[in-house]
Amino acid sequence: MKFDIKIKWCGRVTFGLIFFAVTIWAGERREIAIPDIPGYITLKCDFHMHTVFSDGAVWPTLRVDEAWESGLDAIAITDHIEYQTHKEYGLTDCNAPNKIAKNLAEELGLILIQGGEITRGQPLMHGNAIFLDDVEALRVPDERDAYKKAHEQKAYVWWNHPGWRMPNEIPVWDSVHADYYQAGLIQGIEIVNEKAYYPLAYQWAIEKNLTILGNSDVHGPINELYDRDAGEHRPLTLVFAKKKNPGAIKEALIEHRSAVYHANTIFGREEFLRPMAEEIVQLAERKVKFFSDRNARMQIKNNSCLNLEVEPAKGDCPVKFNKTTIPSQSTGLISISGDLKKLADEKVTIPVLVDNFMIGPHDTLSIYLEIKLVDGKEK
Amino acid sequence: MKFDIKIKWCGRVTFGLIFFAVTIWAGERREIAIPDIPGYITLKCDFHMHTVFSDGAVWPTLRVDEAWESGLDAIAITDHIEYQTHKEYGLTDCNAPNKIAKNLAEELGLILIQGGEITRGQPLMHGNAIFLDDVEALRVPDERDAYKKAHEQKAYVWWNHPGWRMPNEIPVWDSVHADYYQAGLIQGIEIVNEKAYYPLAYQWAIEKNLTILGNSDVHGPINELYDRDAGEHRPLTLVFAKKKNPGAIKEALIEHRSAVYHANTIFGREEFLRPMAEEIVQLAERKVKFFSDRNARMQIKNNSCLNLEVEPAKGDCPVKFNKTTIPSQSTGLISISGDLKKLADEKVTIPVLVDNFMIGPHDTLSIYLEIKLVDGKEK
Amino acid sequence: MKFDIKIKWCGRVTFGLIFFAVTIWAGERREIAIPDIPGYITLKCDFHMHTVFSDGAVWPTLRVDEAWESGLDAIAITDHIEYQTHKEYGLTDCNAPNKIAKNLAEELGLILIQGGEITRGQPLMHGNAIFLDDVEALRVPDERDAYKKAHEQKAYVWWNHPGWRMPNEIPVWDSVHADYYQAGLIQGIEIVNEKAYYPLAYQWAIEKNLTILGNSDVHGPINELYDRDAGEHRPLTLVFAKKKNPGAIKEALIEHRSAVYHANTIFGREEFLRPMAEEIVQLAERKVKFFSDRNARMQIKNNSCLNLEVEPAKGDCPVKFNKTTIPSQSTGLISISGDLKKLADEKVTIPVLVDNFMIGPHDTLSIYLEIKLVDGKEK
Amino acid sequence: MKFDIKIKWCGRVTFGLIFFAVTIWAGERREIAIPDIPGYITLKCDFHMHTVFSDGAVWPTLRVDEAWESGLDAIAITDHIEYQTHKEYGLTDCNAPNKIAKNLAEELGLILIQGGEITRGQPLMHGNAIFLDDVEALRVPDERDAYKKAHEQKAYVWWNHPGWRMPNEIPVWDSVHADYYQAGLIQGIEIVNEKAYYPLAYQWAIEKNLTILGNSDVHGPINELYDRDAGEHRPLTLVFAKKKNPGAIKEALIEHRSAVYHANTIFGREEFLRPMAEEIVQLAERKVKFFSDRNARMQIKNNSCLNLEVEPAKGDCPVKFNKTTIPSQSTGLISISGDLKKLADEKVTIPVLVDNFMIGPHDTLSIYLEIKLVDGKEK
Repeated sequence: MKFDIKIKWCGRVTFGLIFFAVTIWAGERREIAIPDIPGYITLKCDFHMHTVFSDGAVWPTLRVDEAWESGLDAIAITDHIEYQTHKEYGLTDCNAPNKIAKNLAEELGLILIQGGEITRGQPLMHGNAIFLDDVEALRVPDERDAYKKAHEQKAYVWWNHPGWRMPNEIPVWDSVHADYYQAGLIQGIEIVNEKAYYPLAYQWAIEKNLTILGNSDVHGPINELYDRDAGEHRPLTLVFAKKKNPGAIKEALIEHRSAVYHANTIFGREEFLRPMAEEIVQLAERKVKFFSDRNARMQIKNNSCLNLEVEPAKGDCPVKFNKTTIPSQSTGLISISGDLKKLADEKVTIPVLVDNFMIGPHDTLSIYLEIKLVDGKEK
Repeated sequence: MKFDIKIKWCGRVTFGLIFFAVTIWAGERREIAIPDIPGYITLKCDFHMHTVFSDGAVWPTLRVDEAWESGLDAIAITDHIEYQTHKEYGLTDCNAPNKIAKNLAEELGLILIQGGEITRGQPLMHGNAIFLDDVEALRVPDERDAYKKAHEQKAYVWWNHPGWRMPNEIPVWDSVHADYYQAGLIQGIEIVNEKAYYPLAYQWAIEKNLTILGNSDVHGPINELYDRDAGEHRPLTLVFAKKKNPGAIKEALIEHRSAVYHANTIFGREEFLRPMAEEIVQLAERKVKFFSDRNARMQIKNNSCLNLEVEPAKGDCPVKFNKTTIPSQSTGLISISGDLKKLADEKVTIPVLVDNFMIGPHDTLSIYLEIKLVDGKEK
Repeated sequence: MKFDIKIKWCGRVTFGLIFFAVTIWAGERREIAIPDIPGYITLKCDFHMHTVFSDGAVWPTLRVDEAWESGLDAIAITDHIEYQTHKEYGLTDCNAPNKIAKNLAEELGLILIQGGEITRGQPLMHGNAIFLDDVEALRVPDERDAYKKAHEQKAYVWWNHPGWRMPNEIPVWDSVHADYYQAGLIQGIEIVNEKAYYPLAYQWAIEKNLTILGNSDVHGPINELYDRDAGEHRPLTLVFAKKKNPGAIKEALIEHRSAVYHANTIFGREEFLRPMAEEIVQLAERKVKFFSDRNARMQIKNNSCLNLEVEPAKGDCPVKFNKTTIPSQSTGLISISGDLKKLADEKVTIPVLVDNFMIGPHDTLSIYLEIKLVDGKEK
Repeated sequence: MKFDIKIKWCGRVTFGLIFFAVTIWAGERREIAIPDIPGYITLKCDFHMHTVFSDGAVWPTLRVDEAWESGLDAIAITDHIEYQTHKEYGLTDCNAPNKIAKNLAEELGLILIQGGEITRGQPLMHGNAIFLDDVEALRVPDERDAYKKAHEQKAYVWWNHPGWRMPNEIPVWDSVHADYYQAGLIQGIEIVNEKAYYPLAYQWAIEKNLTILGNSDVHGPINELYDRDAGEHRPLTLVFAKKKNPGAIKEALIEHRSAVYHANTIFGREEFLRPMAEEIVQLAERKVKFFSDRNARMQIKNNSCLNLEVEPAKGDCPVKFNKTTIPSQSTGLISISGDLKKLADEKVTIPVLVDNFMIGPHDTLSIYLEIKLVDGKEK
């Protein structure tokens, strides 16, 4: 019982309908607590998802509901252009999803970017093109032509899930990739897709200066794929944009201003991740009072949706502490030990490895916390 | 990335597909802890739901996933025959949902019953017909003819959400209902639909011997409509069947062997609810030891998915206790007070009102617990 | 295995201990999202709790752990002076809890205020005195003398749980209360204690200008009393203080600058609650775009730990909407209906009742939201 | 406000108390879904915990509340005999906890066994003795004498947390242990304590035929130590007893009939774990219908509190499947692939490694599932 019937019941009435605004299936929106960084807004984006118009199980408006509910700023619906499992029921128009969903997106203030997934064979397999005006124009026989058609529309294009269907999920950089890359046909690469992370793709992105992306590639309802109550979340492409609009997103993607949020971890360049981590990981109070000469506790605030994992970084550290988890949006207690009496009343610098920030496939970000130990017994 | 690609990559490969079994979006199944009753299996059923083939937002197979995951035994997909919001995209065939979903249902062991929603004007508005062979045959100009067409196929038919779109959601029994009822065109009535309960419909069901039904009428993903983590659940028609098969369900519906599970409450006839309640609400031990002459505690086990609410029933009770909640699948402590010393070593009968069982719109079921008080101090 | 043993195991060692800092049983701290108001810091306080030193079940340091973990700013441990169930084991010193807990409180940055509960007979029953230097000094034969002794120490004193043990939990204002009140022996009143709310006490507080308090009176572990995962929370006395220190708390209590947070509701004077509500309940965007001439949705942000309940306030409102719940820390969608075309491009003022704010026992706070409707179809 | 006041208020009343039964801080009990095995009841026990009578933070009755709530059958409170941090407040009597808690335990039907922790230096450090009549009798100067005193009372005695305070938490079997073991002074060993698992201790237990134990050693509230909502649980000693009484527990411990439940895993001898696993892991239906010649799904029911992890065991298996998690009390879908057409209508045996059952420090239990594949397309 989802639609409105004219209430003019005098004996027998004829059947009539007043159309509601588009139905919403979502409940309420929760923001994703990942902060902006100096100079940029951090937009939370998912640029890869499907509907009944290719091989998905949901109607396009639901993707808007889900994104609004999940706290996203921008999405692209990217149905397969060449792989459509509901042809028998007439669902083949790759421009339809955007047309169906755009009013709802505008009403809710969500940025909806038109896109499609170029779905061809190995070695390149799948690429996403977004900022398209006409997805159907990419339905051409030759794969390379499809990519060229995308660029004729000034699309932004990347290589999807590079390890998918490869032996052991390990991607291979073939001459085809080299060719497309040199021709500027591929501008970015998914280092995360659905629940898979491809460290080698991350490595290539750094070496070849490709923009990194992480997207859900969701086909069914998003909440069936990621169990929010178990702490799971869809992967996101974090776009560091000057403004919150489609043009600023495109500019940022072209200029490689992105990071990926996946499985409680943020992947990206140090220039973006360092200011973000310093905003998120903060001492509750610089002054740490001790009542035992060997042991004290420092309080670290976690202003984010991450469950932080902190541990001592390599290098000189005047105190010891163990690896500790600080859950999202809370303050953790880190037990520190050492000759506190000797260190008292001086500035003590503690190098901390924050395992949630990966500035390369093998490099974890370190930050520095400065505390001042104060003897609580001396009063 | 949901489909399978032939892995024969030697240089350039042609594109090829091996079809998987139908994709599943669900995770795992949790049974609904509502027990069988003597002589019957208690089947958990939802006979009213929609897909993209009328005004819903999901593909038919998803309804099977969701039902399997939720612990259901049987469902009917009942798209609107006359109200279809995706006509522009060719989605009008009311026989399609069943055709699309049936293999998956069979694979998972879920009973899928073909149905449709006859969607007309006031006063009858909407009726569901299930056990249909051809839903499209009901697409006729006259409303009464549509119901007749359903019965020609030996369908089971009922009046949906009787209070919907009525002033204050209060249903009215019009001459049209009287006519259809007397003609045998309507055999049951939804006393619960989505999140609404219609006590007046329950009253009519008792007076006119209509089968009671409670269904979700879900249009979007089921987990968007009911927040399982907040303890919400979809309403169910509980069918007391002799076997777990479609024929036994039809027989039970015709013979009025049903109850409705909604909002932590079970509605139905005392003959079904009493044995169910006695199975669910049990003393952990009949012997209750006391160490104070005025106070003791009895332990009541709740073997069900209900959060039980128990309170003293009217009538003589030798001990006092307060209204208490016993959460699902747990044992509660009920503090009792009275002259325990005097009652010791005798059989004490405690009449208990179980607020979760409604044997009429105004009647709550009472059961009797028998304890024996034992003085723990005397050893 | 909670203490530290000297690790010098060479053959047989003698037993030795290095004392740790006081053991912490708590995990991590979560702040309580209730904002400051202009001119004041909103301190979250619980001024009534027990330990093994009267009839509680926990050691005093645990009260500090629990309070820190729960996001509190200040607590008072107030063991019963006259009612002590563990005398047999020597636990009678009402100054001990503060002495035991103070270092840990200082280390964690929690304000710990020394107090005690004067535990006498009816009609006054129980009163709390805090900011005491010596709780034991109140252990005198006469009840009125005990209160006088408290004031000699410049304590702050109030009447606890006024309805407790009264028929139907309804408090009575006896001549004893009148006498103590007029003599200045009682300066405040608990309108909430543990899980009970006393509307009559709230009425008296307004009429007699008594400071309102709401406290947990916890005896066992706090997480056994309130189920955080079910959304329960301990009641708090919200103190509107100029600074975060004991003196500022005392000043605020004397000047009646308090509110009570209980069961998802804040009770207090409009002068404090209005700015708080206006900070918490905010439009996500003033501009509301509509795509149907009759229906639109406004987005309301809830920047607090409350699950907000909003509904139309009495008075002229150009649009209709239903009562809606906006969960904590999320943005809700409120469906509004009316002649939107006519209202477009004008300032529309919507009076909203926020059920979570009670400015008197029968008075709910109203706020006003200003939106501007914009026709999304006109482009 | 936890105690009862005589309600005879006529003017001024004298102060009077009617004692309640012992206060309960617990809510409700949830059973632990670990089944009995043929010939034995599986009792859920925690034989190591502390109170304010040594260095714990809670009153003894709370240990009974917590254990009842957690679904336990038996506990022992085992305060340190030699390490007591609340001596200043007179809390030194190691017989007191049992005396205080026994009536409540009896009322709730929980088995309470008197015990104490012999707390000496390295290398043996700490041992627990239970089934004691007088814990204080163990307060003797010599460590070996203390153990002998325990055995004079026919106690059951074991070595606690063998790796604690050792470099890298690795236990060492010293000549002292050899001596005590040969003298029969130590009959068992904790292979799990609090959150630590000692594989080497498990190895010794197998080699030396020591009874294995796993206990919480809890000092603060149990729910602060293990986050139930995050799926954590206290470790348990599972005792395979002929009856549910103290004597049967002692007999089982002496006869090495125990297992340990820790961190979602059960450790113990194959003779106990195999029948348990076969009871827990069951096919929902033996008949598996397939609709694709290469892919099908089998449904496995998990009748336990474990989150099962199943994967293919080594050895011949006619079908492939991936490692899969089946959450507690649910049915999982295991995707299997192979030449199903060829295997159809035959008995297919699938060897399954169940990672949750460790029959040795390096040995995981395998079970065998028998399915029959049926072609769903042939009808």
